[in-house]
Amino acid sequence: MAEEKEKKYAIGLDMGGTNSVFGLVNQRGIVEYKTAISTRAYPDVNDYVKAGVEALRPAIEEVGGIEVIKGMGIGAPNGNFYSGNIEYAPNLLWKGNVPIAKLFSDELGIPARVTNDANAAALGEMTYGAARGMRNFVMITLGTGVGSGIVVDGNVVYGSDGFAGELGHAIVDRSAEARDCGCGRKGCLETYCSATGVARTARLMLEKTNAPSQLRELNPEEITSFDVYKAAEAGEQVAKDIFDYTGRILGAACANFALFSAPEAFIFFGGLTKAGHWIMDPIQEAFDENSLFTFKGKAKLLVSALDGSEAAVLGASALGWE
Amino acid sequence: MAEEKEKKYAIGLDMGGTNSVFGLVNQRGIVEYKTAISTRAYPDVNDYVKAGVEALRPAIEEVGGIEVIKGMGIGAPNGNFYSGNIEYAPNLLWKGNVPIAKLFSDELGIPARVTNDANAAALGEMTYGAARGMRNFVMITLGTGVGSGIVVDGNVVYGSDGFAGELGHAIVDRSAEARDCGCGRKGCLETYCSATGVARTARLMLEKTNAPSQLRELNPEEITSFDVYKAAEAGEQVAKDIFDYTGRILGAACANFALFSAPEAFIFFGGLTKAGHWIMDPIQEAFDENSLFTFKGKAKLLVSALDGSEAAVLGASALGWE
Repeated sequence: MAEEKEKKYAIGLDMGGTNSVFGLVNQRGIVEYKTAISTRAYPDVNDYVKAGVEALRPAIEEVGGIEVIKGMGIGAPNGNFYSGNIEYAPNLLWKGNVPIAKLFSDELGIPARVTNDANAAALGEMTYGAARGMRNFVMITLGTGVGSGIVVDGNVVYGSDGFAGELGHAIVDRSAEARDCGCGRKGCLETYCSATGVARTARLMLEKTNAPSQLRELNPEEITSFDVYKAAEAGEQVAKDIFDYTGRILGAACANFALFSAPEAFIFFGGLTKAGHWIMDPIQEAFDENSLFTFKGKAKLLVSALDGSEAAVLGASALGWE
Repeated sequence: MAEEKEKKYAIGLDMGGTNSVFGLVNQRGIVEYKTAISTRAYPDVNDYVKAGVEALRPAIEEVGGIEVIKGMGIGAPNGNFYSGNIEYAPNLLWKGNVPIAKLFSDELGIPARVTNDANAAALGEMTYGAARGMRNFVMITLGTGVGSGIVVDGNVVYGSDGFAGELGHAIVDRSAEARDCGCGRKGCLETYCSATGVARTARLMLEKTNAPSQLRELNPEEITSFDVYKAAEAGEQVAKDIFDYTGRILGAACANFALFSAPEAFIFFGGLTKAGHWIMDPIQEAFDENSLFTFKGKAKLLVSALDGSEAAVLGASALGWE
């Protein structure tokens, strides 16, 4: 009988609407090999899976074959941990239910699991990042949208249907002025704290003042949180106001979230966190002000400890070890 | 060696600021014996524990002695499941940390556990009530305050410090008109949906109209949801408006809560639920309107299946089986 080889690696797949990044990750959380394919180039998901496995093949052979790989984890839009499917993802070409975990598992001959990107990020943070050793925390991903992954007692909360943890769609403004959200409702956290939310706040704040600003030189639709950061560093009050406004909404929302699971920490991930103290200070301030006395001073507000470009792959791979 | 007797019973203690009700509960969830002592009569908690055990003694002997009792569960204000303590409960005479589980366990010679009343209610509902067979649900208790007990994957969420699940203090109104809460903040769910919240809404609604109402004959400070129910049954529009206002706030809040754990159900318990469709219809309406599309139509909104007078004791006893 052949000796069973030690499972030294896991595959992580960070699937975006445009590109898909595959990584081969070792037990210490180092991405030893990384490769990418276009997600959009494959209207048939079977072709996509074949292309992905093809791209991974050289790396798999390099490390000793599929026998040394424990499993594959996939972070995908609308990925459902329970079913292993991508379910009705608006930003992908494949419609309806796509049995993505089964397709990769069949093609590779190893177990595969799927979840959404924010849950994958939470797993990555717990396995390799700022949440090592924590059993209760909330991951908040600040990107094109606002996502969340909630860990209770050491497990990601998937809920009754696999879609738990959609805190980006918590309604934080019920006033008549609440912003329209892509989900069809109004006042969702995501409309204020996502990349487009920050750009929108920037436009509104610039309209309210005549103060000169380097932000006025940009296409208003394309202002990023990095642009605002540069303006804040240059001493512009309007930039500080933008981060204040954004951070205070996020901090107050987190104080409400803390009531649910009394987490040890909130971990923030994504472009907005690059603004450092400009964004983290108002988050902390509003969090403290809005916290119920029982929870005051308990939860830490942290920035992800994972390298941005690899965090999503690492997070997905963490699911491959389970 | 003596034969070990079957553990056929658990003790449940529903501790309120005024009275404490003890029950001896069998495996089918029948409260076979019930007895009560005054909570306020014992400034020393040791005397309280002795008096409680004294009151229970006859029932314990009746069913076959302490050997047939598996354990004791205590639902108490600020009860902490992890520490076994009551911690800084504002409504009790005993200050600071009170090791209530250890005191009863030592006195009775059986394991004892403590949690807060809303978590106890959730356990009761899961063991004997409307949540039997459910692994993900949220219990909402509507009483003097608004409490909550959250069950994820079949376990009550206690969080990092034992105090998770304080949804009554979710801030649902951030406007200038938000109501003051006893917690020192403004706009908490509890200020609208508790007994005092409903009474306050009644006073405000009565001021806004000249319509005759049987509610005007009452002391405005003492209007209860049952009074409002009777007025609604008598066809009064103002009473329906009070329930509409209250129910819509609660339903919208629950739509936000659902984002966290994607529960199978919300289970409502307490005086307000006695108003039947008058309160449940607006809750359901606002819940449906405010639900993220992913969750629309998924969670059931249910009223507790436990007899009000025994539910708290039953819930506490459920902790005694663990």
